[in-house]
Amino acid sequence: MSIFRKNIERMTAYVPGEQPGADEKVIKLNTNENPYPPSPKALAALREFDGEALRLYPDPMARRFCQAAAKVLDVPAEWILPGNGSDDLIMMISRAALGSGRKVVYPTPTFEFYRTEAEIDGARIVEIPFGEDYALPLDAIAEANGAVTFLANPNSPTGTYAPNEQLDELAGRLDGLLVIDEAYADFAANNALELIARHDNVIVLRTLSKGYSLAGLRLGFGIAQPVVLDGLVKTKAIYNVDALACAVGTAAMEDQAHKNANADKIKASRTSLTSELESLGYHVWPSQANFILARPPAGDAKRVSQSLKTDGILVRYFKGPQLADKLRITIGTQEQNDALLASLRELN
Amino acid sequence: MSIFRKNIERMTAYVPGEQPGADEKVIKLNTNENPYPPSPKALAALREFDGEALRLYPDPMARRFCQAAAKVLDVPAEWILPGNGSDDLIMMISRAALGSGRKVVYPTPTFEFYRTEAEIDGARIVEIPFGEDYALPLDAIAEANGAVTFLANPNSPTGTYAPNEQLDELAGRLDGLLVIDEAYADFAANNALELIARHDNVIVLRTLSKGYSLAGLRLGFGIAQPVVLDGLVKTKAIYNVDALACAVGTAAMEDQAHKNANADKIKASRTSLTSELESLGYHVWPSQANFILARPPAGDAKRVSQSLKTDGILVRYFKGPQLADKLRITIGTQEQNDALLASLRELN
Repeated sequence: MSIFRKNIERMTAYVPGEQPGADEKVIKLNTNENPYPPSPKALAALREFDGEALRLYPDPMARRFCQAAAKVLDVPAEWILPGNGSDDLIMMISRAALGSGRKVVYPTPTFEFYRTEAEIDGARIVEIPFGEDYALPLDAIAEANGAVTFLANPNSPTGTYAPNEQLDELAGRLDGLLVIDEAYADFAANNALELIARHDNVIVLRTLSKGYSLAGLRLGFGIAQPVVLDGLVKTKAIYNVDALACAVGTAAMEDQAHKNANADKIKASRTSLTSELESLGYHVWPSQANFILARPPAGDAKRVSQSLKTDGILVRYFKGPQLADKLRITIGTQEQNDALLASLRELN
Repeated sequence: MSIFRKNIERMTAYVPGEQPGADEKVIKLNTNENPYPPSPKALAALREFDGEALRLYPDPMARRFCQAAAKVLDVPAEWILPGNGSDDLIMMISRAALGSGRKVVYPTPTFEFYRTEAEIDGARIVEIPFGEDYALPLDAIAEANGAVTFLANPNSPTGTYAPNEQLDELAGRLDGLLVIDEAYADFAANNALELIARHDNVIVLRTLSKGYSLAGLRLGFGIAQPVVLDGLVKTKAIYNVDALACAVGTAAMEDQAHKNANADKIKASRTSLTSELESLGYHVWPSQANFILARPPAGDAKRVSQSLKTDGILVRYFKGPQLADKLRITIGTQEQNDALLASLRELN
C-alpha cells in the first residue's frame, strides 16, 4: 500500500515563479506583484498591532475585514468568505465541489493552480483552448457544463478579459458553479460583481495580493450568495486568516484611494510599455491586468528570458505549446520598465 | 445537479470554541491558548518587520523558519514542512492520503477536526474508543491499519498521552501514515521526534499556537522523512505561510528559554489546579497538556459550564456520550485559575 493516493503519486506540484532572497538585487517582473508599497494606513495598522494579542486565536470568519470589504463593494457582509489568499478559496471550491468523476472546466492557457487543485481531488479535467486573441470560447464552456467552471478574468497569463454580458450568459447556461477569479480586477475597466445578485451559482474571487500590494500578507476573499458560501465554509480551515492579516487587510481595504492611485499609475505604465515593446517588434496582447503577454519578434521567448536574467531582470516564461514563444511581464515602476526596455533593445 | 458533493451536503462544519470580541472582559479557558504573552524577541521581530516588503510574495517554503526549527529540534531542515497552523498540515495529509474508500483511523474522543477533514475527502472513518483512563487501544488501531492514523499525543480533550514505546510499536505495525499530532508537546514529559528517523511512515505535527503563545499568527509544521513530505507538498497551497508568520515565528522558535519558562509555569499551575479541583470532588485525568479534563462531582458538566459563563469564565463543554459529563479547562494564569476555583466553590 502506498501512503498516498494514486492521483497524488502521479501529479507534480505547482511551481511558483522564482522568489529571490531579500538581499538579491533583481528587478522582479515575474510574479505580478505591485511595484508600489501598501497603503500607509495598512502599514500603520501593522505598527500599531498589539503583538501580545497574538496569543489568542483569530476570529475564524475575519468579520472585521469582511465588513470593511462589504462596505467597499456594497454587498452584504454575509456574502463574503475570507481566505488565506484567494488560493485558499480555490482549494475550498475544489474540495467542496470537485472529486472523483466530477467535471472541472476552464479555458487555457490560464492560472495553472486550477489544474493542480483538480488533480488533487481527482476531478475530470476539461481544458478548452481560448479562441483567436484569447476570445472566450463561451459555447464550448457552456456545453461542457462543469460542476465547476474556473474563469480568471482578467485572465493570466494573457491579460485579456471577457465582458460581463458573456459572463452573464455563461452563468445562466451553467448548472454548476462559475468561479470568476478577479485577482486582477483592480487594473481592469470592469468587474463582475453585479452578476452575484442575479446568479446563485456565481462566486467572484478577489485578493489583496495585487491591487493592494499585500502579496506577503495572504488575504483573499470570495463573494457569493449564502447558498454558495454555506457549502464552501465547510471545507475552510478553522482559523484560515491570521489576526495580522485581518487587521492590516482591513486598513488596506478602507484606503481605496491609495489602491486606486497605484492602479492608475500601473495602467498608464501598461500603455506606454505596450507601445515601446511594439516599437521593438513585439506582439503585445491588450491587457486589463498588471502585466502583459508579449511575443518577441523572433518568438525566442526562452532565450530572451534567460538573457534578461543575466541582466538581473526576472520575467515569467511558461513552457508548453500555447506559451513557449511568449513572455509574461509584470508592469513595474517607470524605472524598472525603462531598465527592461534598455535590456531588450540590446538584445534586438 | 447540486453544486456541492454529496458528502459536503451531508456534513456539518467544524465548530470552534467561542471567540469573544476583544472588548469583552472574560476569562478565556476554552480554547487552550497560552495565558502568557509571546516571546519579547517575537514581538520585536513584529515591530521591526519592514511592512513595505509585504508587497512581495512570501517564500513558498518559509525556509528561514524551517531552518530555525530544524536547529532547535536537531533534524535536517528538509524534514520540515511549514503550514498555516497545524490544521493546514492535517488538511494536506487528508487530501494527499485519504479519499473515497481509503481508511482513516483514530482513537476517540479526540480533536474533532480529523473527522471533519476525513468527511470532506470521503474517507472511510474508523473511530476506536480509548480504553479505561484513556489508555491507547494499540492492538485495535494496528489491526484497523488505516491509510492514515491520527493520534493526538498528548490527546485533546483528555490531556493523556501514550509513551514512545507504544508509538514505536504502532508505527512498525502500520502500513499507512501515522500522524502524531504534538500540538501540546511543549507541556509534556516526552515527545516522539526520535521515531522519525526510524520510521518512514511517521509524521509529527507541531504548532506555535500553544507553547509559543502565537495562536493568532497561524504557524505550524510537520516533521517527517522526505518520502512523506514529497507527497504532502503537492497538496500545499502555493504560499501557505505569510511573510509575517515566517519572521515572527522564526524569532519565537529561536527563543526556547521564553517558551520553556512559560511551559514550566503552566505545568506547576496544572499540578495545583488538579489538586484543588480534586479537593472539590472533581475527577481529574492526569494531563500532559496545557488543559485538564475534569468531571464535576455530580457529572452536571453542562450546567457547570453555563454557570461559569454567567461569571464571565469560558471553559469547553463537548456534547456527546463520552464527554457530556466532563469539562475541558485550559490552564490560565494563577489569578485566572483562582477565579475559576472561587466560582466552582460557590457552585458546589
